[in-house]
Amino acid sequence: MKRSLGAQTLLYPTPVLVIGTYSQDGKPNAMTVAWGGICSSDPPSVAISVRPARLTYENIRARKAFTVNIPSVTYANEADFFGVAPGRNKDKFAATGLIPVKSELVDAPYIQEFPLILECSLLHTFDLGAHTQFVGEILDVKAEDKVLNHQGHPDVALVNPFVYCPDNNMNYHSIGKIIGRSFSMGQSIK
Amino acid sequence: MKRSLGAQTLLYPTPVLVIGTYSQDGKPNAMTVAWGGICSSDPPSVAISVRPARLTYENIRARKAFTVNIPSVTYANEADFFGVAPGRNKDKFAATGLIPVKSELVDAPYIQEFPLILECSLLHTFDLGAHTQFVGEILDVKAEDKVLNHQGHPDVALVNPFVYCPDNNMNYHSIGKIIGRSFSMGQSIK
Repeated sequence: MKRSLGAQTLLYPTPVLVIGTYSQDGKPNAMTVAWGGICSSDPPSVAISVRPARLTYENIRARKAFTVNIPSVTYANEADFFGVAPGRNKDKFAATGLIPVKSELVDAPYIQEFPLILECSLLHTFDLGAHTQFVGEILDVKAEDKVLNHQGHPDVALVNPFVYCPDNNMNYHSIGKIIGRSFSMGQSIK
Repeated sequence: MKRSLGAQTLLYPTPVLVIGTYSQDGKPNAMTVAWGGICSSDPPSVAISVRPARLTYENIRARKAFTVNIPSVTYANEADFFGVAPGRNKDKFAATGLIPVKSELVDAPYIQEFPLILECSLLHTFDLGAHTQFVGEILDVKAEDKVLNHQGHPDVALVNPFVYCPDNNMNYHSIGKIIGRSFSMGQSIK
């Protein structure tokens, strides 16, 4: 028996993505979003949604670029802080001690300490009401050496990302155990 | 030290979303996507990306509606099957034994057995290259009684969703333990 919960943004789970940008005067900023995800395989693209009042919105429009930084559980406090603190009157990098690194590919900084980062060039801007969706072409993915397996691919257990569940408790959760392999476990069904 | 992995759709984690649609002749179909996420808070909206060759693409364009069905770990085999099997020449509901229920709000079916479903009316269609992004307004969220806590809100542990990690191993993972509360754990940083 299903019960109606009303019109709301309830999706399990959502990612925790820290967006790196430069302001028009060159100051690095970081802001956390949960509204986002991959949106096309070719060109490889990621969509993130930002409210127009945020500094990140202004920065992406001006610089046409952003990075998507995936925090490990180790940096959950910093990622939460990046989502709450306003970028206009606070240097969030100074407050956290994390280091912004200028991307060589796009006009945006990435976060040195985070294990996995995507460097994105702005492709599309869609006004979707409360949020504006920015679609960025992923020009490169960079990972810390220490999260790569011996074949040079990221290992999820080493990246150790986490998710946000927009429910009543608003908790972050780690990633759990492997339950099966994609494009494989469904083959038992004919 | 960061290593370049090239331009690819590598984001941790991505959701596992089963899209319910009706074909032009009224046949229910289900297809799993990992490219998607919430994209605006008002109107509450979700974005999903579908390749134009898929039956789901044709169905959404014709019916202007879809449902987003969030599987529990219990239905991982079925969700994987829905992502691999083509809808054009196979009745995926018959193959899995799952039951399509006609939504009273939108012209699309949802999956009776899945714990959490979103009923969506098509708002925007954006061509993003290999994939087309459909933005749907979430008209209602419905949840199984048994996944609600005593305040009537979904409990993540009871919904028991899972994620896809597009890495080398392409595994599905369950959701892990709580690591902290959002809009709260970052307050230790000033």
